[in-house]
Amino acid sequence: MRESGDAVRLSFNELKDLLRRVFIKVSVNQETAELLADNCAMVERDGPESHGVFRIEGYLNTLKSGWVNGCADPRIEDCGESFIRVDADNGFAQLCLARARPLLLEKVRRSGCAVLMVRGSHHFSALWPDIEPFAQQGLLALTFVAGLSVVAVSGGKTPVFGTNPLAFACPVAGSSPLVFDFATSALSNGDTRIAARAGHLLPDGCGIDKSGQPTNNPEQILNGGALLPFGGHKGAAIILMVEILAAALTGGAFSYQVDFKNHPGAETPKTGQLLIVIDPARGGNHDFAARVAALLNLIRASGENIRIAGDKRLQNRARAEQQGIVITRAVLAQLNGFL
Amino acid sequence: MRESGDAVRLSFNELKDLLRRVFIKVSVNQETAELLADNCAMVERDGPESHGVFRIEGYLNTLKSGWVNGCADPRIEDCGESFIRVDADNGFAQLCLARARPLLLEKVRRSGCAVLMVRGSHHFSALWPDIEPFAQQGLLALTFVAGLSVVAVSGGKTPVFGTNPLAFACPVAGSSPLVFDFATSALSNGDTRIAARAGHLLPDGCGIDKSGQPTNNPEQILNGGALLPFGGHKGAAIILMVEILAAALTGGAFSYQVDFKNHPGAETPKTGQLLIVIDPARGGNHDFAARVAALLNLIRASGENIRIAGDKRLQNRARAEQQGIVITRAVLAQLNGFL
Repeated sequence: MRESGDAVRLSFNELKDLLRRVFIKVSVNQETAELLADNCAMVERDGPESHGVFRIEGYLNTLKSGWVNGCADPRIEDCGESFIRVDADNGFAQLCLARARPLLLEKVRRSGCAVLMVRGSHHFSALWPDIEPFAQQGLLALTFVAGLSVVAVSGGKTPVFGTNPLAFACPVAGSSPLVFDFATSALSNGDTRIAARAGHLLPDGCGIDKSGQPTNNPEQILNGGALLPFGGHKGAAIILMVEILAAALTGGAFSYQVDFKNHPGAETPKTGQLLIVIDPARGGNHDFAARVAALLNLIRASGENIRIAGDKRLQNRARAEQQGIVITRAVLAQLNGFL
Repeated sequence: MRESGDAVRLSFNELKDLLRRVFIKVSVNQETAELLADNCAMVERDGPESHGVFRIEGYLNTLKSGWVNGCADPRIEDCGESFIRVDADNGFAQLCLARARPLLLEKVRRSGCAVLMVRGSHHFSALWPDIEPFAQQGLLALTFVAGLSVVAVSGGKTPVFGTNPLAFACPVAGSSPLVFDFATSALSNGDTRIAARAGHLLPDGCGIDKSGQPTNNPEQILNGGALLPFGGHKGAAIILMVEILAAALTGGAFSYQVDFKNHPGAETPKTGQLLIVIDPARGGNHDFAARVAALLNLIRASGENIRIAGDKRLQNRARAEQQGIVITRAVLAQLNGFL
C-alpha cells in the first residue's frame, strides 16, 4: 500500500484480501467471501465508480438484514446436453456461476453452445466479470440480469423493469477480449445515485417524477419517480427482452416481484441471470477472433478518437496494474471500520 | 380481390400467388419462390411499409443482376448436439431457415437450446417471420442479421456497419406470441428512403452527411453520408454485437465486405444470420408463457395507451385478416407488369 495525499494505492491482492475479511466479518462463508472480494476488487480496478467498493456498504447492509444468504449452497440441475438450471439457494449469482462453470464449459465444448439459467440469485455488481473468462478461453458469451423495479415505460406512471443490464464478451486476436456491459435503462442505479449526491442534473429522457412527468432531477427519479429505458422504443424492447430472459426464462422473480420490505437495509435484487455461451470455432470457423480484430481495427480507422465499448475499462485496468488501485483515505477507513 | 377507389384489397393467398409468379418469372425456382412470396405477403400484411411489396423491385433487380442465386441449394452442416452451420449457396436466408428448421427443432427439443449459423446468405426482408414460428411452438428465439455498410459510429466519417436488425420472439399464454424486430441503426434503410422520397426531415441523431457532420436530411445520409446507431453509446455496442454475431460468428461476410459493384442493380446484403432457439420449459419451468403474459399485463396497466413492441404489427395483421391486404392500383399494376 502506497499513500499519496488524500489517496492510497493498493495492489489488487491487498484490496481483495481486505474485502474478503470484511465479508467474513458479517458471517459470509469462505467460498462466497473469496468470490465476492475478487469480483468487487476487479470491478474497482476497472471502474466505473458506480460499482466496486462503492457497493460494499450495500452488500453488508443486505447481508445483515437476512435478505441474502452469505452461506448459500446452490443446487446445479443438469437439464440436457446444453441446458443447466441453478437454484441459487438465495445466495449471490457469482457463487452459482463459479459452481456451474465447469459443467457449462464441458457442455459448450461438447455440443457447441449451452445456456445457464440461475434463479433466486442476488446480483449487485457489474456483469463483465461473469463472462470475460469465457472470452479468454476463446468462447463468446452473453449474459442478462433483472433488477429492482425502478424503470417505467414511455407513458407509464409506475416502474415495471429493473435497470436490467446485459453484457457481451468475445475473443479478439492479438489483444484483450471485447467485453461490454451496460444497464438497458437510460442510466444505472449507481450513476443516478452518484448524480443525486453530486447535485447534477441529468440529460433529457432519463426519467420521470412521481407524477409521471419527465424530469432531469435525479432526486425526483429516486424519490417516487422512475428511470426510463435507454434508446426510445428500441431500448424499451431490449429492456423487456432482458426482463424475460433473466426472470421468466430462468424461473427467477421479475424485477417487480422483488419485495424486501421485511428486510430493512436490504438493497440487492433477488431475481435471475441467464448466460448463453457459444463456441465460435465449432464447425471450422477458426478465424473468428482474427475477423473480430479486423472489424475493430476498421472501426477505429473510420474516424478520429473513436471509442469502442470496453475501451475505458481496459485503460483503467492497465493503469491500476501499473500504479495500483487508488481509493481515498476516507473509503479505506470505512472499509477498515467494518472489520 | 376487391376494388375501392384508388386501392385494391387482396386476400393473403391472392397476394402470395401473384408474388410467387413474379419470382418464378425471373427464374427463381419453385421452392424459393414459394418461400419468398409467403414471406413478402406476410410482411406486407403486417406492415411496416418499408418492407413487403415495396421491396419486390429490389428483389427482381438483384436476381437479374446475378448477385443472388434464385435456385440455391444450401448445405446443412450438423456440427454438434446444439450447433448447425449452413452454407447458403449464395441464396436467400429464408430458404436456409426452411431447410434447417426440422434439424434445429430436433436439436432444441433434445438438448434444450441450439444455434443456427447461416453464411453467404441474402436477407432483404423483416426478421420476425423467421422466428415467430418457434414462439408459436412454445420456444424462445433470437435472430441477428448483418447488412449493407451504411452506419457509422459516433465520431466516424465512413460507414462500418449494416443496419443490423435483431428480432426476439417468445410465447405468451392466451395470446399471440411477443415478437419484435428492429434495425439497430437509428433508422432502417427502408425508412430512410421513404423519408427521402416524402421530403421529410429526420430527428436529431439519425445520421451524418458525407463530411461526417450531423444532418437531418435523409438525402444527405443516402448520398455519401451514413446512418448512426440507435440509442447513443449503448446502441453502438448493440449494433457492434449484431455485426459480430451475424457475420464473424456465422462465417458470413461483414457488412463492410459486401461488394456488388460488378452486379449493377443488386441491392441485397450477402452476409450471415444467427438464430438462437431455447426451450423455456426445459427443467420444469412450465409457467414461462403465463409469466410473460402477466408481465405484459402489468406493463399495460402501468399507464394509459401503453404500446408494447409488436402491437402495431398484430393490429395490422388483424385488420388485413378481416378486410384484406390493401395495396394501391399503381402497385398492383407494377406487380402485374413484372409477369
